[in-house]
Amino acid sequence: MNLSDLPTPALVLERPILARNMAAMATPLARHRVTLRPHLKTAKSIDVARLALGGRPGGITVSTLAEAEYFVSYGITDILYAVGITPEKLVQVAKLNGAGADIAVITDDPETAAVIGAYPTPIRAMIEIDCGEARGGILPEDPALLLLAAALAPRFAGVMTHAGHSYAACDRAQIAAIAEAERTAVVRAAERLGAAGYAVPIVSMGSSPTTLAAPSFNGITEVRAGVYMFGDLFQAAIGTHGPDDIALTVLASVIGRRPEAHRFLIDAGAIALSKDRSTQATAHDYGYGLVRSLAGQASFGTAIVQRAYQEHGVVGADPARPFPALKVGDKVRVVPNHTCLTAAAHDRYFVTDDNVEVAAVWPRVNGW
Amino acid sequence: MNLSDLPTPALVLERPILARNMAAMATPLARHRVTLRPHLKTAKSIDVARLALGGRPGGITVSTLAEAEYFVSYGITDILYAVGITPEKLVQVAKLNGAGADIAVITDDPETAAVIGAYPTPIRAMIEIDCGEARGGILPEDPALLLLAAALAPRFAGVMTHAGHSYAACDRAQIAAIAEAERTAVVRAAERLGAAGYAVPIVSMGSSPTTLAAPSFNGITEVRAGVYMFGDLFQAAIGTHGPDDIALTVLASVIGRRPEAHRFLIDAGAIALSKDRSTQATAHDYGYGLVRSLAGQASFGTAIVQRAYQEHGVVGADPARPFPALKVGDKVRVVPNHTCLTAAAHDRYFVTDDNVEVAAVWPRVNGW
Repeated sequence: MNLSDLPTPALVLERPILARNMAAMATPLARHRVTLRPHLKTAKSIDVARLALGGRPGGITVSTLAEAEYFVSYGITDILYAVGITPEKLVQVAKLNGAGADIAVITDDPETAAVIGAYPTPIRAMIEIDCGEARGGILPEDPALLLLAAALAPRFAGVMTHAGHSYAACDRAQIAAIAEAERTAVVRAAERLGAAGYAVPIVSMGSSPTTLAAPSFNGITEVRAGVYMFGDLFQAAIGTHGPDDIALTVLASVIGRRPEAHRFLIDAGAIALSKDRSTQATAHDYGYGLVRSLAGQASFGTAIVQRAYQEHGVVGADPARPFPALKVGDKVRVVPNHTCLTAAAHDRYFVTDDNVEVAAVWPRVNGW
Repeated sequence: MNLSDLPTPALVLERPILARNMAAMATPLARHRVTLRPHLKTAKSIDVARLALGGRPGGITVSTLAEAEYFVSYGITDILYAVGITPEKLVQVAKLNGAGADIAVITDDPETAAVIGAYPTPIRAMIEIDCGEARGGILPEDPALLLLAAALAPRFAGVMTHAGHSYAACDRAQIAAIAEAERTAVVRAAERLGAAGYAVPIVSMGSSPTTLAAPSFNGITEVRAGVYMFGDLFQAAIGTHGPDDIALTVLASVIGRRPEAHRFLIDAGAIALSKDRSTQATAHDYGYGLVRSLAGQASFGTAIVQRAYQEHGVVGADPARPFPALKVGDKVRVVPNHTCLTAAAHDRYFVTDDNVEVAAVWPRVNGW
């Protein structure tokens, strides 16, 4: 089957770019001798996970318990569930761990830590550190740090942080500075815990931008990153990868033409693309995505999806070019703003090696 | 099972509000003696479709062929697929029609119309009219109107339009004016076709706001509307329904607390809520959703989801109130900006009649 035969909208994954992005992440990590614990929140696919692990048996990060259960079913046991746990969710974690998994959880909440510490079956738990994002976690100097470790006691497995605010940085130097702040925050927390007599087996940091820009991983035992695998227009804008390193696109059909208004309609709208507008905050606003040819080429210049309705995308053609010679039914590919959210609406990847043939179909695990 | 026992995030549907919203739509339509062809793009559920049809055997609108196939499998045969068709997609429509369905398609493209007209099996087709939204369709005075009808010839089934630009209106009077423009556009197209000798069995208009505000349906044979069933913060802002008529919410767990910053974290983020920000354009910006109690009460005042990460929602508590007495694991409900997109990430509804018990679980048909 060829890409041109697929029903639309559909998610297309270019395997050569995926492989290149994975190599681009492996190189600096090998230089620094730090282990990657790939975050599968973007890919949600065992096929991608195996490539990301590069032959290692496991050690992954997930964002939902549905992902955890799915990856356990494929034999991956070493999993970090990197969203603050609740007491209720420990039941499902314990069940999976009882069936052979080793899922670690994270917390920054004293009451939850006490529940984990006293849980009838062992569940490893890490303390979440806030390195500046102001989302989850406690500051490294917070007095609660030692209280949390004490509450977790035999289940305490380490510290972790995530510099999600690196996404708001404008250039590599800024991201490198955030990466260093990310490292020092979590290492400082580990030092305080070490000084108080706790073994801190895992000291984990990571986001794709900071992992690729970090000047040092001293004191870090592992990094977590996910979006680097596929890339997107936003990550290209902040320099995580180059503009041609985006492996994921949405295949769409032209469903209407307005040559006089210099625009056309496609059947990829707000669900197929997501309403993420992250490039709006960067130097170049790509609307709801950049439109390329069926073969993935930049044949339409600056054409972007200007409006996104539930199942309609309104494409503004490049004003500097003649109206594209596209008929209703012809296919295009849309490069996404934010690959994690665009992928989320699709249940599978159509994998291609040559932008012509579908080489494989890889399912995704969506939902919760 | 109670709502409080559900894994989170989860989609909660309040059946009494759903019934009320359906009655609120039925009343003006009964007065005007016009038929509703409910749009199931929002609900994507046979259980909701049956309620929307109120005992009639069918006559629905869909936004994807996956919806069409799903509803056909439940015995609904009279279906309008209201997104511009492509020649390739006719194959699936023909297959479903061959199995007993009667799916009508829409087009505004002469080449596609010629394919439909010459298709080996009959597929009814309507001409899409642009009444001012500038998305799909031709203007009612466009010379192409008669050419399209000629190309469709024996398959020509009528004209349809959609005033999606009613969503940008500020008050009921503006929406009523857009509704009248919607009506006159599609009726004018029908008149031109009638004058040229074509029978025009279907003259279809509709959006939830215009259907509820329309002063007249003269010349209209049916209306299409969907979002009115569930409602959302945006539709409340433009007056489609009242602020207490929102039937759909996302159940979420508190996963972190920052009393000193007057905010807390929930496990409903950009996927569970969508990144739709439609209330940003209205008088009151609700961020990524308004936070209510587990019982659906306005217990947290103006608390909204201020930031939405993939699986994290950052809730800003009401500055005029003390920090909510919520522990990690406690549950809240998030009222969405745009119900169609919020529902899209979830595979089922947990239906409640009393905001306590789960009375039913209704699956959804997502994807394409």
